[in-house]
Amino acid sequence: MSKTLGELARLVSGEIMGDEGLVIRGVASVEEAKEGDITFAVSEKFLRIAESSKASAVVVPSGIDNFCKPVIKVENPRLAFAKILEIYAPAKPEPGGIHKTAVISDRVKIGKGVTIGPYSIIEEGSIIEDNVYLSGFVYLGREVFIGEGTFIHPRVTILDRISIGKKVIIHSGTVIGSDGFGFVRKMNGSYYKIPQIGRVVIEDNVEIGANVTIDRATTGETRIGQGTKIDNLVHIAHNVSIGSNVAIVALVGISGSCKIGSGVILAGQAGVTDHVCIGDNTVVAAKSGVTKDIPSDTFVSGFPARNHIKQKKVKAMVNRLPELVKRVQRIEKMLGDK
Amino acid sequence: MSKTLGELARLVSGEIMGDEGLVIRGVASVEEAKEGDITFAVSEKFLRIAESSKASAVVVPSGIDNFCKPVIKVENPRLAFAKILEIYAPAKPEPGGIHKTAVISDRVKIGKGVTIGPYSIIEEGSIIEDNVYLSGFVYLGREVFIGEGTFIHPRVTILDRISIGKKVIIHSGTVIGSDGFGFVRKMNGSYYKIPQIGRVVIEDNVEIGANVTIDRATTGETRIGQGTKIDNLVHIAHNVSIGSNVAIVALVGISGSCKIGSGVILAGQAGVTDHVCIGDNTVVAAKSGVTKDIPSDTFVSGFPARNHIKQKKVKAMVNRLPELVKRVQRIEKMLGDK
Amino acid sequence: MSKTLGELARLVSGEIMGDEGLVIRGVASVEEAKEGDITFAVSEKFLRIAESSKASAVVVPSGIDNFCKPVIKVENPRLAFAKILEIYAPAKPEPGGIHKTAVISDRVKIGKGVTIGPYSIIEEGSIIEDNVYLSGFVYLGREVFIGEGTFIHPRVTILDRISIGKKVIIHSGTVIGSDGFGFVRKMNGSYYKIPQIGRVVIEDNVEIGANVTIDRATTGETRIGQGTKIDNLVHIAHNVSIGSNVAIVALVGISGSCKIGSGVILAGQAGVTDHVCIGDNTVVAAKSGVTKDIPSDTFVSGFPARNHIKQKKVKAMVNRLPELVKRVQRIEKMLGDK
Repeated sequence: MSKTLGELARLVSGEIMGDEGLVIRGVASVEEAKEGDITFAVSEKFLRIAESSKASAVVVPSGIDNFCKPVIKVENPRLAFAKILEIYAPAKPEPGGIHKTAVISDRVKIGKGVTIGPYSIIEEGSIIEDNVYLSGFVYLGREVFIGEGTFIHPRVTILDRISIGKKVIIHSGTVIGSDGFGFVRKMNGSYYKIPQIGRVVIEDNVEIGANVTIDRATTGETRIGQGTKIDNLVHIAHNVSIGSNVAIVALVGISGSCKIGSGVILAGQAGVTDHVCIGDNTVVAAKSGVTKDIPSDTFVSGFPARNHIKQKKVKAMVNRLPELVKRVQRIEKMLGDK
Repeated sequence: MSKTLGELARLVSGEIMGDEGLVIRGVASVEEAKEGDITFAVSEKFLRIAESSKASAVVVPSGIDNFCKPVIKVENPRLAFAKILEIYAPAKPEPGGIHKTAVISDRVKIGKGVTIGPYSIIEEGSIIEDNVYLSGFVYLGREVFIGEGTFIHPRVTILDRISIGKKVIIHSGTVIGSDGFGFVRKMNGSYYKIPQIGRVVIEDNVEIGANVTIDRATTGETRIGQGTKIDNLVHIAHNVSIGSNVAIVALVGISGSCKIGSGVILAGQAGVTDHVCIGDNTVVAAKSGVTKDIPSDTFVSGFPARNHIKQKKVKAMVNRLPELVKRVQRIEKMLGDK
Repeated sequence: MSKTLGELARLVSGEIMGDEGLVIRGVASVEEAKEGDITFAVSEKFLRIAESSKASAVVVPSGIDNFCKPVIKVENPRLAFAKILEIYAPAKPEPGGIHKTAVISDRVKIGKGVTIGPYSIIEEGSIIEDNVYLSGFVYLGREVFIGEGTFIHPRVTILDRISIGKKVIIHSGTVIGSDGFGFVRKMNGSYYKIPQIGRVVIEDNVEIGANVTIDRATTGETRIGQGTKIDNLVHIAHNVSIGSNVAIVALVGISGSCKIGSGVILAGQAGVTDHVCIGDNTVVAAKSGVTKDIPSDTFVSGFPARNHIKQKKVKAMVNRLPELVKRVQRIEKMLGDK
């Protein structure tokens, strides 16, 4: 899996300073790079660490003009690094056909180049497009649709009538299409279940982490827009609608019927109350609790979430409260007030 | 699956204004209703939206006397809507008998009308009552009890000696009976495992969401009271006791030995410290952290959780801190203090 | 499973006050103990409850000199109780060999006394050492290593090239080796996946709860140090390094590249931002959000997390804000200011 620096530079359309023929055997972060590895650095700090590291070459931003090691200069070093990682990644599993232990019901349509791993269950009427890869223990309910090139890791549940787009990646343990949490409270305090008869639609190029839960809609659909990336242990409730290219970090919870715009970032452990709209490109800080609509292009934090700058100002004042109390005491003393 | 307005009205004991013979082909929320659909509306706001929607009929509260569309008037429109949804819901899967791939150990008792899906494992000594439905990949440990009419979705783990009541619903990915998190810390800093030899008892009519974890007791039992509803990704620790008709929203964590009264609501991402009692009908707001006992019929929020009204008052003052600081500065100036 | 008080005392190297021959039939907490049971008590409060309980004997701290029931006196009653619980615990499952339904690929090495439960999948090149117990539905990817005596509960996913130490316990639903959440954002707002080609290393004697997710490193490794205990629904991101004997309580999230020292305690629902270091033996309170490095031997709380004593002081002042506002109003009045 060795490449020369020249080959890697061509791959990422980068410019070389140093020996084109240098052999690169692996790829690593600046902290763990060893001889023969290529690494990358963006900021001044990491450029210094890279220089003193054992890495044999470094991917750096175009501006850099002198560096004590061979470099590949590119506009976006992180993107170039991602592409170089692809070269050194272990081979993806070969398409394995349909394992003899897979339980496949009637009226299932299966495309070309499809892999269905051991102990998978495909219920009636499901459609699996070309080049889909289902690992072991995958459960597809009735009338599920899986788009071309989608990769589903082991132990994933996709329930009845759910639709998954093309080139989607779903990690292990995730459940898509569980019932929404909908009940009517009766006079005697008991809960009456509201049937959840809607669907979930996952658009193309979405990636969903491990042990995520996405509930089906009561009626209509829960929808995850194309290119959206969801981390582990995230909960998305019924009838939520999420735009494209949204990033949702681990342990976030989104309540029923929320509308999340495109390009939004929800940081870890944030939560959103039901029926809230969040505008495009808004950032919600970690652990925030969004309780009302948030416009586009905003950065909010705290609970209830609001403008992050204001929130920080208030927080700073809270931390100086002991001082404020002393100032008031001094004034009271001056005024002879007890 | 079409019904007339008259048939639906009889089903929910409602009163019709409009054409009894009107054919209703589907059911939808006000936002997504199309011609031929029935929807429902409770508040003034949604009644207006319903009027301008494409819905052909609307379930409304009894008080309503004029409306521009055919209506069914009922005391509880949400409950009526739930019952109408049942009519239009996709058919439940038929009992399928015991799949030939199910691995069933000795001394397992299986009632009438039981379904055991593909690739299920039932260990020694378990009892499955009549009309239980186990989907694929269900794991029942040794001496598990599953009460009549319970429905277990794919990929659920129920470990040794756990007891599940009648008409319980358990969603995919959930684990019941994992070991409680109990260790003794030794002088050298290492942890010594405390064996977790107790059980979990889930009472009748409980519904448990996807990827939930409920730990077995150290000794004795962890108990979930009848009619309680648990959302996705909730954690319930060892020896917790939960009353009846409790609602626990997603990503809540309840620590060991807590006692939660009946009718309590724990909103999303709330947490409860160990050995805390929460009285009946108390509401714990989202993201709250309960650190000490809370009486019945209380509404608490924040961390540490306390009376919600007081909490809101304090929060409002925190947000006005910049103003307070300015007022103190002005006073100091007046007094010639620096 | 009955033992005499004398037998139990010898087991825990304790000193008896009372009848050596007393037959102990079970073990229970003070609240639920019945005749024939032994219980334990450490604090004054629980010693009183134990005296008035139905327990036939009590494990107590060495200092105790008079007690109305037979006792076993030991230095560490909790540890002694854990050891007595082992006696009364239900028998562990016997090694069951390799179930005929297990799908085992080529070049898999399996040690002596190994159990592989029904419907397990072991991919190419994996190594399973002696006395490992894999329950049903366990998925081991390619080139996985499982150390001697490790116990893996049903429905666990361990992906390619992950290494698990000796005597590790992994509870149901857990996923180890899912891809880290790493993407490069492109100019058009879309995310480009950074291949995650690193590993996870779980050291000896680690216990991992149910439905936990531990991501593989981008390059290099995510590492969990020996003796560390992880509760349910915890998320550990790529390239995190955790020391030995760390306790991580339910619903905690640890972001990428964090370094957590040995002996650290992270309480429930706490979160840690990426690239943060937490020193040895530091305690992070429940629901805290750690945003920057924390030294060793510290107790932090809040968000952003800082010294718990300071945090409490500030919190107390926040709660007295209404009073402070009144004091400022009174001063303003005195000064004739509006």
